[in-house]
Amino acid sequence: MNEKFLKELKAKFGIEYHNLALLEEAFTQSSYVNEHPELQLQDYQRIEFLGDAVMELTVSDYLYKKYPNYPEGKLTRLRAAIVCEDSFSAFARECHFDQYILLGRGEEKNGARNRNSLLCDIFESFVGSLYLDQGKAAVTKFVQQVVFPKVEAGAFSYVMDHKTNLQEYLQKDGEVEISYHLVAEAMPTNNQQFTVEVVAKSKVLGTGSGHTKKAAEQVAAEVALDRLLGHA
Amino acid sequence: MNEKFLKELKAKFGIEYHNLALLEEAFTQSSYVNEHPELQLQDYQRIEFLGDAVMELTVSDYLYKKYPNYPEGKLTRLRAAIVCEDSFSAFARECHFDQYILLGRGEEKNGARNRNSLLCDIFESFVGSLYLDQGKAAVTKFVQQVVFPKVEAGAFSYVMDHKTNLQEYLQKDGEVEISYHLVAEAMPTNNQQFTVEVVAKSKVLGTGSGHTKKAAEQVAAEVALDRLLGHA
Repeated sequence: MNEKFLKELKAKFGIEYHNLALLEEAFTQSSYVNEHPELQLQDYQRIEFLGDAVMELTVSDYLYKKYPNYPEGKLTRLRAAIVCEDSFSAFARECHFDQYILLGRGEEKNGARNRNSLLCDIFESFVGSLYLDQGKAAVTKFVQQVVFPKVEAGAFSYVMDHKTNLQEYLQKDGEVEISYHLVAEAMPTNNQQFTVEVVAKSKVLGTGSGHTKKAAEQVAAEVALDRLLGHA
Repeated sequence: MNEKFLKELKAKFGIEYHNLALLEEAFTQSSYVNEHPELQLQDYQRIEFLGDAVMELTVSDYLYKKYPNYPEGKLTRLRAAIVCEDSFSAFARECHFDQYILLGRGEEKNGARNRNSLLCDIFESFVGSLYLDQGKAAVTKFVQQVVFPKVEAGAFSYVMDHKTNLQEYLQKDGEVEISYHLVAEAMPTNNQQFTVEVVAKSKVLGTGSGHTKKAAEQVAAEVALDRLLGHA
């Protein structure tokens, strides 16, 4: 395995593998296996199968204990936002995993190294290899550095369904009609932006923007709730 | 918690809880909570959220180590057949969990106690409570008694995709046309039954039945493979 990568793992995360073959397998894509039949390699897929389940439990365990007052629905939405391709590929990039994937030449040409689906797989297979090499506690320690601080900084709180919370707040004394209106839409390349306002009893309660209408509505509802509850 | 249940857990599985409140919460449905507001109970849903992930990892870890030669696709199909409502509800019944669920009167009347979705939830929440009370190793020990022997006895091997295996076998020396024909269909209440035969080179290689056409085709392919390989 690449020496620079081993140094990075040790310096950044305090991780040193007992069995480097596991780490190597975790970073080997099938295209590389096919190009080097003489090496008789295994690709990362079996280890990724395991790593997927390790991440699911590590995150579930953390959320269950960290948020004792969250009902199950909220925990499930939060877990789904953390345990997904978008998040895992971002974590993989942040850990520089993209630089160390063993790819065949065709896949390299096709830009696989920067593909979210591959980076997500590699994040899971890395976690699977760490679990096999050093157990669940070592994975938790790694995830405590890479994932949990972001959760605590609110990076995934957009899934908290502020629309439902706003509705529950406004309707605590009876039915109130709440509506969301698109008030602006900008569409620069790859960066669509929607702005939405939320209205009840003819009053604009809040305005929010996002890359989708749904996200913008959530932000608007969150802004409205913060105002109504006096947090903002 | 019910004394008989505690005795059963100890006698059958060697399990004794440190914190019985966890076990009680794992068996409490929301309808029971609503009927007894004075008890200030929590229903099982938060613990089930955790138990779901615990089962996923326990089964994945086992399959990964038990079947070192299975490719990822096979492991994933096998895991999906084990970690699902049908299987978990059957395990719950086998452990007599259905007898100890705390249900409200309305849900009791509606037959919830025998509903697969509830039994599946309870199996997961039981596992979640055991994990919280005694850790992952205790869960593995329990699952080794209730789940793994069935895997080893082949109870889930129907997902092994015999159709693909048959195709690979028949086509090892070149293209062969393989077709599946529905030869019978019975439809008693709640127990639809299909019978299918698999044909190649104008010969019937095998016949199989199942509750869906897909399942029947798999059985037919398995029968054909067993005959061709001289196992039957």
